[in-house]
Amino acid sequence: MAKKEDISSSVIKRLPRYYRFIGELIEQGNLKISSADLAERMSLTASQIRQDLNCFGGFGQQGYGYNLPELREEIGRILGVDRERRAILIGAGNLGKAIATHMQFEKYGMRLCGIFDSDPVKAGSIAAEMPIRPMTELDGFIAENKPEIAILCIPKAAAGDIAEKLAVSGIKAFWNFSHYDMRQIEKKYSGIIIVNVHLGDSLMTLAYGLNHMPSEINGSACR
Amino acid sequence: MAKKEDISSSVIKRLPRYYRFIGELIEQGNLKISSADLAERMSLTASQIRQDLNCFGGFGQQGYGYNLPELREEIGRILGVDRERRAILIGAGNLGKAIATHMQFEKYGMRLCGIFDSDPVKAGSIAAEMPIRPMTELDGFIAENKPEIAILCIPKAAAGDIAEKLAVSGIKAFWNFSHYDMRQIEKKYSGIIIVNVHLGDSLMTLAYGLNHMPSEINGSACR
Repeated sequence: MAKKEDISSSVIKRLPRYYRFIGELIEQGNLKISSADLAERMSLTASQIRQDLNCFGGFGQQGYGYNLPELREEIGRILGVDRERRAILIGAGNLGKAIATHMQFEKYGMRLCGIFDSDPVKAGSIAAEMPIRPMTELDGFIAENKPEIAILCIPKAAAGDIAEKLAVSGIKAFWNFSHYDMRQIEKKYSGIIIVNVHLGDSLMTLAYGLNHMPSEINGSACR
Repeated sequence: MAKKEDISSSVIKRLPRYYRFIGELIEQGNLKISSADLAERMSLTASQIRQDLNCFGGFGQQGYGYNLPELREEIGRILGVDRERRAILIGAGNLGKAIATHMQFEKYGMRLCGIFDSDPVKAGSIAAEMPIRPMTELDGFIAENKPEIAILCIPKAAAGDIAEKLAVSGIKAFWNFSHYDMRQIEKKYSGIIIVNVHLGDSLMTLAYGLNHMPSEINGSACR
């Protein structure tokens, strides 16, 4: 099947959602689905689905639908979740420990291999079945284990210096839960991947929803 | 100043980000900013900024820039973060406890007033300076305290039944960290606000970034 790696950013944004929905369908025992059914489940149009999935080389057959396991494997390959990239987590506070224990990193092509905290009281205890290490061990650990990903669960004030240090040490991607604006790092170290998680923005969306009736949300005086 | 409440969904999506950036600028001691400066910081165009901020009744003056405290207050009012809506959190596992302690709910117009867990061992202990309550107390607590928001930090298998029970009890908005697909609840109880947090989708975006060079990301064979 012809595969096009040259996929637009709008399709890329939808990839994780496709991967998740298709995974759920397979878990429920489905092996195929029509574009109309998948569209309904994902609140997209069938034509949008057909157009998007054509980017991954097809997998749809007229009158048969999409082969779900094949499609999932292909999207997973494009996403890179079939790899085992090493990740470290910095900041073993409440959120950091929760991320370390809650996320099934192997599902996303990653393995958490180290957790670090600047607090000497925390360092030495255990999270996600591994020791929390002091920051003094960070350089040596990176040199030895060559992680590619750093998960930042540290306060904004500390994030700039640590992110810079990590970028210099060879970290290629940041999953940033701190409120630190990573654009400086992004500009300085070209090719660095940054994905921010702004839980506050998400909560504000909820606040907005409660504060407005649906009829107002669909208004369109300003576009 | 003329204010238009009739704001398009694309502007609404940017509101939390505006609110966050403007808040940071004020924290740094700024009282005004030009649309060009704000655009640069937010990676938008100046004309986009002007168009968006006009939706909130102006606050910009030729040759002066935007009055940041006024603009922040107005966006906050539209977002509804100037309220004190009551929220409960269901599921005091690692993630639930981290959300309870980490989020500064009052910044988003909310107050966490109760935490519940089905595990009798957890119920009775303390998180975010409040007791974790058993699920048997949920109905009485809701009747007495009338929370509007439920934060779901429970496994997918339990989420459907609990979300249904909460919707029946009068919960108006869900902040959903479970992997449960809330569309059934959304369809059944019209007017319910649902905001999902898919941390896995965010992590897959990072995986994709690592798996592809920037030049490939900008490709556009499929739109």
